[in-house]
Amino acid sequence: MSVDFQSEFKNKKVLITGGLGFIGSNLARRLAGYGACVTLIDSLVPEYGGNPYNIDGIEDKLKVNIADVRDERSLRALVKGQEFLFNLAGQTSHLDSMENPFTDLEINCRSQLLILEVCRRHNPGVRIVFASTRQIYGKPQYLPVDEKHIVQPVDVNGINKMAGEWYHVLYSKVYGMHATALRLTNTIGPRMRVKDARQTFVGVWVRLLTEGKPFEVWGGEQLRDFTFVEDAIGAFLLAALSDKAQGQVFNLGGEKAVSLKDLAELLVRANGGGRYEIKHFPEERKRIDIGDYYADFSSIRAALGWRPSTPLEAGLGGILEFYRKNLPHYL
Amino acid sequence: MSVDFQSEFKNKKVLITGGLGFIGSNLARRLAGYGACVTLIDSLVPEYGGNPYNIDGIEDKLKVNIADVRDERSLRALVKGQEFLFNLAGQTSHLDSMENPFTDLEINCRSQLLILEVCRRHNPGVRIVFASTRQIYGKPQYLPVDEKHIVQPVDVNGINKMAGEWYHVLYSKVYGMHATALRLTNTIGPRMRVKDARQTFVGVWVRLLTEGKPFEVWGGEQLRDFTFVEDAIGAFLLAALSDKAQGQVFNLGGEKAVSLKDLAELLVRANGGGRYEIKHFPEERKRIDIGDYYADFSSIRAALGWRPSTPLEAGLGGILEFYRKNLPHYL
Repeated sequence: MSVDFQSEFKNKKVLITGGLGFIGSNLARRLAGYGACVTLIDSLVPEYGGNPYNIDGIEDKLKVNIADVRDERSLRALVKGQEFLFNLAGQTSHLDSMENPFTDLEINCRSQLLILEVCRRHNPGVRIVFASTRQIYGKPQYLPVDEKHIVQPVDVNGINKMAGEWYHVLYSKVYGMHATALRLTNTIGPRMRVKDARQTFVGVWVRLLTEGKPFEVWGGEQLRDFTFVEDAIGAFLLAALSDKAQGQVFNLGGEKAVSLKDLAELLVRANGGGRYEIKHFPEERKRIDIGDYYADFSSIRAALGWRPSTPLEAGLGGILEFYRKNLPHYL
Repeated sequence: MSVDFQSEFKNKKVLITGGLGFIGSNLARRLAGYGACVTLIDSLVPEYGGNPYNIDGIEDKLKVNIADVRDERSLRALVKGQEFLFNLAGQTSHLDSMENPFTDLEINCRSQLLILEVCRRHNPGVRIVFASTRQIYGKPQYLPVDEKHIVQPVDVNGINKMAGEWYHVLYSKVYGMHATALRLTNTIGPRMRVKDARQTFVGVWVRLLTEGKPFEVWGGEQLRDFTFVEDAIGAFLLAALSDKAQGQVFNLGGEKAVSLKDLAELLVRANGGGRYEIKHFPEERKRIDIGDYYADFSSIRAALGWRPSTPLEAGLGGILEFYRKNLPHYL
């Protein structure tokens, strides 16, 4: 990662969908720090990740445009003239996708096609990076999971995210647009949603720990990898800049795979105390759970030089520190 | 195929979406012949496959309901009480899907989710067979292509059909519904669309031959397999009846792979004369073409005992005979 992001992004026009969300806002902070001209689109739908507090302290360094990616007219106006588009707006809850499958379809599938059509017609040169998800692999057939692994989504969200990702690859290949999809694994960090498990169960753990309450670990033996948000952002920036990333799909991953129980232990240790209980996996979730997962990220390492660099303990410590100071803004 | 379809389907309530189309109407004829109570849904959108003449002579043996699968209220009323649902409504043109991607999404993706949701709420026991397509495999990585082959759609149609197929598998796995997806390869036969190439290029060849005009073969070396519609129907019926088909995805295939040039020769021979020209592959289509394709259908053979049984020459002869008599109804 020897790219000089500061000089690459200084004064560049950047649009971030889902910009008030967890990853979007952290990305906005980095880019604003580099001197980029950043515009955020966010719908602030309460169930999703947008939170105005996420840009606390940098409000004057960027533009916030409240709009929904389902709205073609807003998109058209906002996409024009942008040099980079980080496409992070999404509905992330697996359970919500089963309860409201059409809402999930509108946001994760149709709106992605809409964004690409609007770009194709009004700004075909914009460089797009799309936040996809490891969820589309379904239950791993082998570990670590590389990008050649078959995809077999286990919920409506996974199907729609898959379609959304493919539109990006297709528009890249057929129309020569620059679009890259990153298949994120469990991304965690400051500004993640903690009031419920819609983004990540780790959010709920962190909230309860910070509140001095015990948290529940469902199962505990499942292996997972975690990407800290600052590392994920590095991947978005590299993908946006590199011609090698055009039309590509890359896994992100974590430093190492850990069991949920071990993660709970690490978190309690980083917190200097706290309690958790191992619980039987609820039936409702079990039907759509995927067992162990961790990614092979050698493809993006080879192409773009990316790898996660935040050590697990240090990263968890940083998260806890953030929420000790800021928890009320996330409840 | 030792199943006694006659006794299995006699007096059974069957709904066919896209029922006035090529495959739907042939299926309706078979089922009406078995004494099933058949209802067809068709939108009769001119660009799609529906043609009232397709049920010529059997109009009094079934019910035709003009409706669009995008219309939830019609679906709800029509799905209730059905024992089988053959889900064949679709937009099949690859070029149309690139020009009108949202229409393709509405029909091939959103409507499929809608059909499944309506069934889940109002008729979860209905046995569903969905017409998917080999198009979702994209450019084959190996031949013959089996169901484990990675999917990588090369057009908007392929992405949306993929999503539509996965919804069926998902609803089967998560809700215990009986749904099966058949990945059709080039299906040909009487009642296929011949006025343009929206369903299959073979339609245009047959029309021009029947009119005594030369037809064009683009490229000519590409290998393809062809399933005659009567064979395809056998697969739909078997999948609907067998518990082994629940939640499964099966390739259909052809007796053998033939080059387009050899198919043209066979067709001219079956016609007792005619001319064709080999043409350079148009650039516009080349970008989304997939090269050689033929399917490994051993999975459905093992599970349901299906295999194509119509010899290529005999099948082509039957098609030509049909259009010699009926061509004006298909122009």
